Amino acid sequence: MVTLRCIGEDVLVGKLTKMLATSPSLLVSPGDDCAVVRTVGDSPQTAIFQLLKTDALVEHIHFLPTANPRDVGWKSVARVISDFAAMGGNPQHFLVTLALRPSTSLAWVEEIYRGISDCLERFGGHVAGGETTSVPEHSAQMISLAATGQVASQHLTLRSGAHVGDAIFVTGRLGGSLAGKHLTFCPRLTEAAWLCENFKPSAMMDVSDGLAKDLPRLAAASRCGFLVDEFAVPRTAGCSISQALNDGEDFELLFTISQPQVADLQVNWQKIFPSLELTCIGKMLAPGSAGQPASDMPGGGWDHFKSIENSAT
Amino acid sequence: MVTLRCIGEDVLVGKLTKMLATSPSLLVSPGDDCAVVRTVGDSPQTAIFQLLKTDALVEHIHFLPTANPRDVGWKSVARVISDFAAMGGNPQHFLVTLALRPSTSLAWVEEIYRGISDCLERFGGHVAGGETTSVPEHSAQMISLAATGQVASQHLTLRSGAHVGDAIFVTGRLGGSLAGKHLTFCPRLTEAAWLCENFKPSAMMDVSDGLAKDLPRLAAASRCGFLVDEFAVPRTAGCSISQALNDGEDFELLFTISQPQVADLQVNWQKIFPSLELTCIGKMLAPGSAGQPASDMPGGGWDHFKSIENSAT
Repeated sequence: MVTLRCIGEDVLVGKLTKMLATSPSLLVSPGDDCAVVRTVGDSPQTAIFQLLKTDALVEHIHFLPTANPRDVGWKSVARVISDFAAMGGNPQHFLVTLALRPSTSLAWVEEIYRGISDCLERFGGHVAGGETTSVPEHSAQMISLAATGQVASQHLTLRSGAHVGDAIFVTGRLGGSLAGKHLTFCPRLTEAAWLCENFKPSAMMDVSDGLAKDLPRLAAASRCGFLVDEFAVPRTAGCSISQALNDGEDFELLFTISQPQVADLQVNWQKIFPSLELTCIGKMLAPGSAGQPASDMPGGGWDHFKSIENSAT
Repeated sequence: MVTLRCIGEDVLVGKLTKMLATSPSLLVSPGDDCAVVRTVGDSPQTAIFQLLKTDALVEHIHFLPTANPRDVGWKSVARVISDFAAMGGNPQHFLVTLALRPSTSLAWVEEIYRGISDCLERFGGHVAGGETTSVPEHSAQMISLAATGQVASQHLTLRSGAHVGDAIFVTGRLGGSLAGKHLTFCPRLTEAAWLCENFKPSAMMDVSDGLAKDLPRLAAASRCGFLVDEFAVPRTAGCSISQALNDGEDFELLFTISQPQVADLQVNWQKIFPSLELTCIGKMLAPGSAGQPASDMPGGGWDHFKSIENSAT
């Protein structure tokens, strides 16, 4: 029997995506950080598109039962906002699905909601509705968020726009997020909006499964190869190169930009965001070029169905 | 410790809802079948609102591991479409979250997606994106759908619009859905659209947790009481009155309409939908009126957190 563990997450998603009918209102096919759809009233004049995103946190996978529930609530929203940011957009309405064991305390659920409210208050967006459902007592609990966002057409930034020769940048430092950052991170909403306004990236995404998994996805979507200087990858203090490449849940911006813009970007970034590092880690190459990818990039990062096996053996 | 089992679903939702900031773009506060929001381009001229809905199916709660996965996929979409129908709207874009055990077979997941596609092809709407995530091997699997829909402002029908004296109608027959109908039902999308176009109900919802739980919700939202003739409630063959009131997952339309429209509605309904029964089961009363509610209505129906306890004892 072919199980999900055998094929892994990317093959599964590829197979399921092929089964779906296409729609003229879908502006971006599945596979980017968010879906992009035409809105009821969009027109060449307004040109504001709607972003749609769903994201789930599963107990034992994305948070431990001992985690601070207010942080878990924050993370559930921050992950979605990070995806909207990576497309150049802003959050709007959120639907919250809580799948909970009946023995769970009301106080725990209220703290989850406090964390959700904290993050929305900080970055914008409102809860429009949701659902609560029970799960059997032996089951993991789950917090699943679905949200709408919006993006001006001229700011929409996809994974698929990188060109051969573009410089590859990453914000912040990578690796070691499990020590705490994965629960309390700040989505790079302001930074992404500034980038799209001033130095429109050719391609962008957030680093959620680890650079080793996410950069190849961006390159594949852009039909490019890439060359990364592993030693240039900014590492969280105490982290190895392998951790920086593979740990995942960094929620930093990964983007590409044309070479002539690089110097200007670096000077201006330091003025505007002096406390957040911006690092050039490599460049896009022609597909199949020698030198790509960096030695341990392929097969690294987080795979939902394979990682379980790894952690179980 | 106050657990969810102690307080039940409605109290939990009430407490969480109070914690949320309101938004001027939210046209209907949480508690109806869907959220209703202003769209980017809406105006008094266009007057098309967006509907937002999320709905989750949990293994062992909403479907058994032995259920036909194609039916489970159908049900996951049909439940959401039933909610859009109950607001007078239509489905548009769907996000599919699958939380799966790594040992699950690819074939099972593909059948889930076939069921999803079947239902969308029949009733409209497209999958715009989604997510796959793993759950621990001991956990229940979950299929969570989030969707956008749209509704013309003049067709928007809420739970809160019923007036004292309005007649209460229900489509089809109630009870016994666990014998199979809960997996293979047809959402009443066509019927609801026809109603909103021709005999605009004063209030409407779909019967998902059982008439005994859902009618009191509609009455509370409308600040009315109600009187139901239990013997008039249309029962699935072989079902008792109690089953018809409490089983849930009927996914029939429950609506109210002014008395002067009743005779006309009944005549026209029979012409247009000769194979689907439409039954007047009672009328709305002033709040707190004697005679309401029907003897075993309150406290019946399906409660997510309390029912687990009942079924475990």
